[in-house]
Amino acid sequence: MHRQETDDRTAAGPTGEPHRDPFGWLDAQAERRRAAGLVRTLRPRTADSGLLDLASNDYLGLALHPEVTDGAAAAAHRWGGGATGSRLVTGTTALHTELERELAEFCGFEAALVLSSGYAANLAAVTALGPHGGLIVSDAGNHASLIDGCRLARATTSVVAHADPDAARKALDGHEGPAVAVTDAVFSVDGDAAPLPEFAAACRESGAALLLDDAHGLGVLGDGGRGSAHAAGLAGAPDVVATLTLSKSLGSQGGAVLGPAGVIEHLVNTARTFIFDTGLAPAATGAALAALRLIRREPQRAARAREVASALHTQLTAAGLTTVRPDAAVVSVHAPTPDEAVRWAADCRAAGLVVGCFRPPSVPDGISRLRLTARADLTDAQLTDAVRTIVRTAPAGAFQG
Amino acid sequence: MHRQETDDRTAAGPTGEPHRDPFGWLDAQAERRRAAGLVRTLRPRTADSGLLDLASNDYLGLALHPEVTDGAAAAAHRWGGGATGSRLVTGTTALHTELERELAEFCGFEAALVLSSGYAANLAAVTALGPHGGLIVSDAGNHASLIDGCRLARATTSVVAHADPDAARKALDGHEGPAVAVTDAVFSVDGDAAPLPEFAAACRESGAALLLDDAHGLGVLGDGGRGSAHAAGLAGAPDVVATLTLSKSLGSQGGAVLGPAGVIEHLVNTARTFIFDTGLAPAATGAALAALRLIRREPQRAARAREVASALHTQLTAAGLTTVRPDAAVVSVHAPTPDEAVRWAADCRAAGLVVGCFRPPSVPDGISRLRLTARADLTDAQLTDAVRTIVRTAPAGAFQG
Repeated sequence: MHRQETDDRTAAGPTGEPHRDPFGWLDAQAERRRAAGLVRTLRPRTADSGLLDLASNDYLGLALHPEVTDGAAAAAHRWGGGATGSRLVTGTTALHTELERELAEFCGFEAALVLSSGYAANLAAVTALGPHGGLIVSDAGNHASLIDGCRLARATTSVVAHADPDAARKALDGHEGPAVAVTDAVFSVDGDAAPLPEFAAACRESGAALLLDDAHGLGVLGDGGRGSAHAAGLAGAPDVVATLTLSKSLGSQGGAVLGPAGVIEHLVNTARTFIFDTGLAPAATGAALAALRLIRREPQRAARAREVASALHTQLTAAGLTTVRPDAAVVSVHAPTPDEAVRWAADCRAAGLVVGCFRPPSVPDGISRLRLTARADLTDAQLTDAVRTIVRTAPAGAFQG
Repeated sequence: MHRQETDDRTAAGPTGEPHRDPFGWLDAQAERRRAAGLVRTLRPRTADSGLLDLASNDYLGLALHPEVTDGAAAAAHRWGGGATGSRLVTGTTALHTELERELAEFCGFEAALVLSSGYAANLAAVTALGPHGGLIVSDAGNHASLIDGCRLARATTSVVAHADPDAARKALDGHEGPAVAVTDAVFSVDGDAAPLPEFAAACRESGAALLLDDAHGLGVLGDGGRGSAHAAGLAGAPDVVATLTLSKSLGSQGGAVLGPAGVIEHLVNTARTFIFDTGLAPAATGAALAALRLIRREPQRAARAREVASALHTQLTAAGLTTVRPDAAVVSVHAPTPDEAVRWAADCRAAGLVVGCFRPPSVPDGISRLRLTARADLTDAQLTDAVRTIVRTAPAGAFQG
């Protein structure tokens, strides 16, 4: 075994030059991206850009709320900059336990488990509920993290048509081992909600579990923002598990899995992205907890987010644009072509408005669109301004005949 | 599509009861865990337990350093509780860019990309460098996140014997497409270092890239803690990529990938755990940046962590215990049986000392052990106390003949 006794070797150069470029194959891919106009680049933002944000997932406008940032700061000062280890070793603080208890209670589930991201929560939940010999039925529109969870799980995965409980029913029919149907509760791109009661009914017919990802429903849907499962009367049901993220409506970072206590115990014992990851940082834990308490105290925020989304849809549709009627806080506006979508988003930005821009291959249906997110803290004046900017900069082909 | 118009439906009960328990299969697994004495439980810690910590990965003792926690708090107040979106949408702040620049510079690489966890960084790096038609050669002792990366990657994976560059050479030999050898630089359980120069030489013979995970080397190995790649003279080499975590020596949360700019651009464009995840929270970004600057200013911390590890090894060995000579800051002490390992760790805790306890199936070699982590901020008196406690509570069978 190599042994590091001193620092003497640190100045040594590479031990030899490669006889071929091991990353040469990346050049052709980069060239294809450039030729197709599909290069993704990072655009760092400043803390005081003055731009109006309709692109983030900060649905309730809490990321910069003083109670939330104070919650982050206080937790860092008390508990440290990091959790220092796996949740199973030194990474569980009393603060994590507090957040888990309050999250479960708010959303109406028996137990909750907090992970370092929504991505990690989805990998944990899907792999834990999709064992060898099991069946996962997965909606074709599911988020990347659910898809990766299916790929990591030992179960067989059957991908079914988007938002189609009958397709899920057929796929589940006759399977004898553990089975789970997996769906986003609110889909990220178009903001459409899954037909959860129908999915739950399909699952129950065959004794399968339902796993729903409520990343975009928590804080927006359900009584006071209790989420999609609560709205559908499924919260706390013995056969339902929900995942959610702390990085959208709660203005922080992290993810969680909610469900029966036995399922949570199973995750603690088997989920690799829980066991082999450092616990969520205290600051993120504290920020999420502060946001959660704020939402409980101010339940009107959820309704306001939906109201803003509805107003965006109504006004943009009235102006002749094609928008998808929002089920939650995401409003999707169709663009004629990928290039025009990019140009449209850039023109909005030049006019002081930040919007999301989705185009193939990120969108499987091939429709390029602007993705607008309603925020509960938008004023009516900001809303009017935003609509005016979007309509003014729209390409001619975006208006309906 | 299901439409959420009002909150009226939130009080509705479940739409039906399952005709069988979809989680019934978990009961047998839970029972097997109980029977085998392998139930994992969360043990929340308090902020002021008074226990001496030799279990966390806070190698430099920075998680509670005022500069680090102030860095977290200031970032939260300035930038918010969360990053608010994917790094490609609204989730890149100027603070992320600053951390990436300074991390790359400190470790000696051209470019860096920060992700929300070390787990996410490993999934990103392995999948991005293991395309369809490619070959991944993976050390048998690699961390769960590297293994999951191999399972998600489209490339073929060949698992080779632990710390065996010849085995890697043979596995790489003759492969024509993209190839990468993947190894932990310092292994988590025993704290042994990989023979990186020999691995790099094996890779170069066949034109493969080397991907090393420096989660446990950053801050401990190399000049002033610049990490394993720097120590091995491999930092900045055109065929080397390193991943690291911000949650160990840097006392925060998050992960990063370091390498040639073209590789980082490739990750930005293709890595799903980067593209489809919310950016690292500002507080974690600020804490890591503060810790990094502190390490640059106080390069002796790395040497002190190694000195403490070495002293632990020397003193425990002198007392007759079987310990693995540490390459970094992890010191592993063998226990005779799983049950005795658990009892030993519990006795240490009762005496005020927190140590890690690893046993099968977490350790593939079947050897139960205490896992001690050296911290740069341990005093000599604390060290002596810790050794005395470990020796005093050791099971008789732990002492060599």
